[in-house]
Amino acid sequence: MEQLPAQMTVIGISKPGGPEVLIPETRAVPKPGPGEILVKVAAAGVNRPDISQRSGSYPPPPGASDLPGLEISGEVVALGEGVSKHKLGDRVMSLVAGGGYAQYCIAPDAQAMTVPDGFSMIEAGATAETLMTVWHNVFERGGLQPGETLLIHGGSSGIGTMAIQLAKALGSRVIVTVGSQAKADACLKLGADHAINYKAEDFVARVKAITSGAGVELILDMVGGEYVEKNFDCAAVDGRIVQIAVLNGPKATINAAKIMVKRLHYTGSTLRPRSLADKAAMVKAIEANVLPLLRSGQVKPLMDSNFPLEHAADAHRRMETSEHIGKIVLVV
Amino acid sequence: MEQLPAQMTVIGISKPGGPEVLIPETRAVPKPGPGEILVKVAAAGVNRPDISQRSGSYPPPPGASDLPGLEISGEVVALGEGVSKHKLGDRVMSLVAGGGYAQYCIAPDAQAMTVPDGFSMIEAGATAETLMTVWHNVFERGGLQPGETLLIHGGSSGIGTMAIQLAKALGSRVIVTVGSQAKADACLKLGADHAINYKAEDFVARVKAITSGAGVELILDMVGGEYVEKNFDCAAVDGRIVQIAVLNGPKATINAAKIMVKRLHYTGSTLRPRSLADKAAMVKAIEANVLPLLRSGQVKPLMDSNFPLEHAADAHRRMETSEHIGKIVLVV
Repeated sequence: MEQLPAQMTVIGISKPGGPEVLIPETRAVPKPGPGEILVKVAAAGVNRPDISQRSGSYPPPPGASDLPGLEISGEVVALGEGVSKHKLGDRVMSLVAGGGYAQYCIAPDAQAMTVPDGFSMIEAGATAETLMTVWHNVFERGGLQPGETLLIHGGSSGIGTMAIQLAKALGSRVIVTVGSQAKADACLKLGADHAINYKAEDFVARVKAITSGAGVELILDMVGGEYVEKNFDCAAVDGRIVQIAVLNGPKATINAAKIMVKRLHYTGSTLRPRSLADKAAMVKAIEANVLPLLRSGQVKPLMDSNFPLEHAADAHRRMETSEHIGKIVLVV
Repeated sequence: MEQLPAQMTVIGISKPGGPEVLIPETRAVPKPGPGEILVKVAAAGVNRPDISQRSGSYPPPPGASDLPGLEISGEVVALGEGVSKHKLGDRVMSLVAGGGYAQYCIAPDAQAMTVPDGFSMIEAGATAETLMTVWHNVFERGGLQPGETLLIHGGSSGIGTMAIQLAKALGSRVIVTVGSQAKADACLKLGADHAINYKAEDFVARVKAITSGAGVELILDMVGGEYVEKNFDCAAVDGRIVQIAVLNGPKATINAAKIMVKRLHYTGSTLRPRSLADKAAMVKAIEANVLPLLRSGQVKPLMDSNFPLEHAADAHRRMETSEHIGKIVLVV
């Protein structure tokens, strides 16, 4: 094991603002506390909340790093007290509470997972946050069952492309909405049964036509705004709707009678503020139910592009174009 | 057993309109089909959907009677083929798909329940719809657990007064909102822990104060309109909201980010269109879990007033004042 340096390069948020506020800094390499591991970061996934945090609208939770970055891959290089799941030298991927945009990052031992065989470290760095978000919201919270139809808004996003693959691998039918033909093609190639370009078509009418008027059993929505009421129209009787982001804004007008008459279930979640125990429970469920699909090569993150850590600003610019298809990753 | 007459008096809806369109008519006494019983009606509960049906905004489901009336009590006077749960002469109370405002009414055998000891037939006539609505929405759909806090909007309504009693009997804390001091007093007398007069106080602020800022685990809402967004503010993290009516209208403006950040569950239902199998399953659960509380005298419908069947119009006028506290019943 190499000697750990005292200092490391990180990407800090110099002040709230555009991509240009992401600036390399030097910080002390952190020391893992009880139950924590220190990871020498190989790759760090870029996620929408990183952009909100950079802009100043999504402050890190109390006690978390002020640095952006919610998922990493890398090698375990130091162990805190009581660590039992991982050992020095393990190749892991993990959700982290922040601080992923760095050469070294702390992760809770229970939250880290072994990098699946056949995954590059770049792919592994694009996996944890997306996988936990999809697993929890589609399968635990949304209760997707084999044979049911899942509608995914934002089908070509990192989360969307993972959700398509997992839902298909576990026996469901998938409809996605996307904003271009290239994105539709990418989703269909991943296994989606139908891709609707919302710029060209009325997605409510298409969903009804595809489902012979019945609607879909589950909707995964990261758009919000006017989609909220449209989701009520796309959902089947007893349908579930899971809100995981509101890219078009939080304000929505709804018809509450539809909740009653269709007996809908409208819920949602955010991952970051969940307790360590909740996150560890999700990881356990994923290790049992999903990692075999990753190890077999059946499911892999769809990669859009990667950037050197120092060019994090360019990675954010790429995400803000919304032209990306799949995951954007920083390589350390 | 007396001879059944060929004809009976019913209250028909002569045309959509105000209470005055409820007019006595003569109809043929219906014959029970397979799995059905004929009940000689002793009392028929008056419910809000009866008013919507009278006004023309809530047509009866296909195959149902065109007469109003969703719950009855009475004596079983004829049996259809295959009836096994009840026998001639039984005193029953039942949810019906319509036709309760009549001297005789058909009920599905599986949906009728034995009148609890100690209940008058008038009380029994005010029980079935209310009990099934509360049981399903508060306990099955809402999942209320002992020790949790339930917020009921419309606490002094027939449904509200039943919900207070059941929730208290099963170990929960209850907060209600009501529109007058007299209604608040009635709810407190029934066991509610707190009654908030929404005309005098900001109920969101009061609910937060009562729960030390945490909010309530479950909300039963029959108001809708601007209450929908206020419910999001009253709910605890992981809280559930069940919509059972929209007396203030179905349109609501919401902040969808609150669904995510608080991990809310917003659902609802209406009872009338449920399948016979669903309703029979609810009755079975009620017979196992709730009827013992009725037989012991711990839970009873709170009675507001009763009217002769022929004066159904006056009963509707009473409900439309919203001055009633508890159930309004027609006595046949």
